[in-house]
Amino acid sequence: MRATLMYGAGDIRVETVPNPTIKEPTDAIVRIVAGCICGSDLWPFASKPPSAEGARMGHEFVGVIEELGSEVTGLSIGDFVIAPFIASCGQCEFCVEGLHTSCRNGGRWGGTDDGGQGEFARVPQASGTLVVVPAGFDEKLIPSLLSLSDVMSTGYHAAKKAGIVPGQSVTVIGDGAVGLSAVIAAKLLGASRIILMGRHEARTNLGREFGATDIVAERGTEGIAKVKELTNGDGTHVVLEAVGLKSAIEMAIGVIRDGGVISRVGAPQFSDVPLGFHEFLRNITLTGGVAPARAYIEELLPLVLDGTINPGRVFDRTIGLDDVPAGYQAMADRQALKVLVRP
Amino acid sequence: MRATLMYGAGDIRVETVPNPTIKEPTDAIVRIVAGCICGSDLWPFASKPPSAEGARMGHEFVGVIEELGSEVTGLSIGDFVIAPFIASCGQCEFCVEGLHTSCRNGGRWGGTDDGGQGEFARVPQASGTLVVVPAGFDEKLIPSLLSLSDVMSTGYHAAKKAGIVPGQSVTVIGDGAVGLSAVIAAKLLGASRIILMGRHEARTNLGREFGATDIVAERGTEGIAKVKELTNGDGTHVVLEAVGLKSAIEMAIGVIRDGGVISRVGAPQFSDVPLGFHEFLRNITLTGGVAPARAYIEELLPLVLDGTINPGRVFDRTIGLDDVPAGYQAMADRQALKVLVRP
Repeated sequence: MRATLMYGAGDIRVETVPNPTIKEPTDAIVRIVAGCICGSDLWPFASKPPSAEGARMGHEFVGVIEELGSEVTGLSIGDFVIAPFIASCGQCEFCVEGLHTSCRNGGRWGGTDDGGQGEFARVPQASGTLVVVPAGFDEKLIPSLLSLSDVMSTGYHAAKKAGIVPGQSVTVIGDGAVGLSAVIAAKLLGASRIILMGRHEARTNLGREFGATDIVAERGTEGIAKVKELTNGDGTHVVLEAVGLKSAIEMAIGVIRDGGVISRVGAPQFSDVPLGFHEFLRNITLTGGVAPARAYIEELLPLVLDGTINPGRVFDRTIGLDDVPAGYQAMADRQALKVLVRP
Repeated sequence: MRATLMYGAGDIRVETVPNPTIKEPTDAIVRIVAGCICGSDLWPFASKPPSAEGARMGHEFVGVIEELGSEVTGLSIGDFVIAPFIASCGQCEFCVEGLHTSCRNGGRWGGTDDGGQGEFARVPQASGTLVVVPAGFDEKLIPSLLSLSDVMSTGYHAAKKAGIVPGQSVTVIGDGAVGLSAVIAAKLLGASRIILMGRHEARTNLGREFGATDIVAERGTEGIAKVKELTNGDGTHVVLEAVGLKSAIEMAIGVIRDGGVISRVGAPQFSDVPLGFHEFLRNITLTGGVAPARAYIEELLPLVLDGTINPGRVFDRTIGLDDVPAGYQAMADRQALKVLVRP
């Protein structure tokens, strides 16, 4: 089969690799119908040291079950399934608590295993990992279904961990696919005011359609001043941080209201968070983390199927496998918001 | 009247100062029955630069109302009252939300205003600030009533912000008065396992009586290893951090379970918290802050009056005003856990 490998920064190749086979009786083989490129793929695309061994790429996909191991339950050949971006057993105490990302038996896609940017993938812990989409759905929903494997679930994780309750004010930092999904999530949970901080007009316009009530294009101290101006000098009850840079977390601290919650889902590219004595006096909470997408798919799936939410709109480009290298470049150059791959 | 002033590190004096008078119609004058020395007073006692102007000290007290401003409601001359360590109006949105420490009209004790280590104090925003203890209580309860003005409410704040639910495991870092109060609070909220990290045996013994199930005397990586050993390698669901040093928050991060909550009430003596990518992958939450004691006094007062909790046991020395300088030294030298002052 054909699959995507990264050999180093800027070096993406689509190559022929062996077709996956069942290795464990808990595995499934999925024929990938749609995968995509993630904002987090851009970090290694920018900085990964060159290597003779390519790493298999992609951790978000939807597809059809081709083959099942002997111990898989609850799934059938031909099912259309959503694969969250981390595999999980569904049975250990972390999975039961909804923290599938800390599963005792889980695993990640890619590297030496199959990734989501290819034709097929072996799915470990298939019974716990995969979520079946009831047959008969409109194919136009595929982008939104795909978004549940990562970005929409990640935005929802930010909002859930923040504990947003109806009527609260929320700042979303970042107008990428996760930030825009966080806008959808904040609205779902009843936020009355959603301030989206971002400076790419096409993206912030989509953010408005998703529920943002205000857009702040400024950054740094100017951005903080603007959000404060919009909120009577107090800042917002909640900040959803979807960037991962230190400057973003500093903005979050600047715009959070006393007693408020900063929920971060941007993978931090820094090791220390400036939460010292001043923030202690303000009772600021920092929460969030990598999203256990599996925990949210069953809750969000009906909202996608009935059209309540349409997070698939974050995909603004669809390509075939051969165009994946160009797709990475388009996202790195911010010419594309998020690229969908149809193998 | 006589009152305590700090002129710099190690320089505590008890002097005659003017008696307080009503300045605002919302003020009350309280005759202090019992005050105390706080662990947080030890920071300036160790490091405050010398000054010709002494700062009035003490922010925890109980006493009897002597005089009331014309606009004070809900209080009467002769009422026995508890003064939380920050004054608050009780009516702004922060007070209504229970975050009295961010009150728009509040204020702190001491400095150029009256403190709690003296004979009398002017209480601003008296209607919002003071809580009346119903007459007829046993005088032996005074230490526990006094603890509600800071340490017990602070320990409770840690536990409440952590959202402890019955059956959870909790590590308490610090065997000072706040740490021991946090043990009481964790037990009140139903923690099934309470690991107290501290190395002063008299204090950890009291911690056991308060509800600690395990004591870990080791610190740093050894302490972390010990807590992990006690918890199947996972760490505890919650950590209540009652020290404020960076080494303590590092221990907290070391012993927290994936998905867990670190709630800090030790005033941070550092500006950055090491919550980077690794902690992001573990979904660690950091919460806590300065405690809005006023929010908890009405809830905890009945438990003190009926003997359910006895936090006053953290006071292991009682002195008169003239002995306050020696009381600071005794706490700094760890010869006393917490010193109660009867003016």
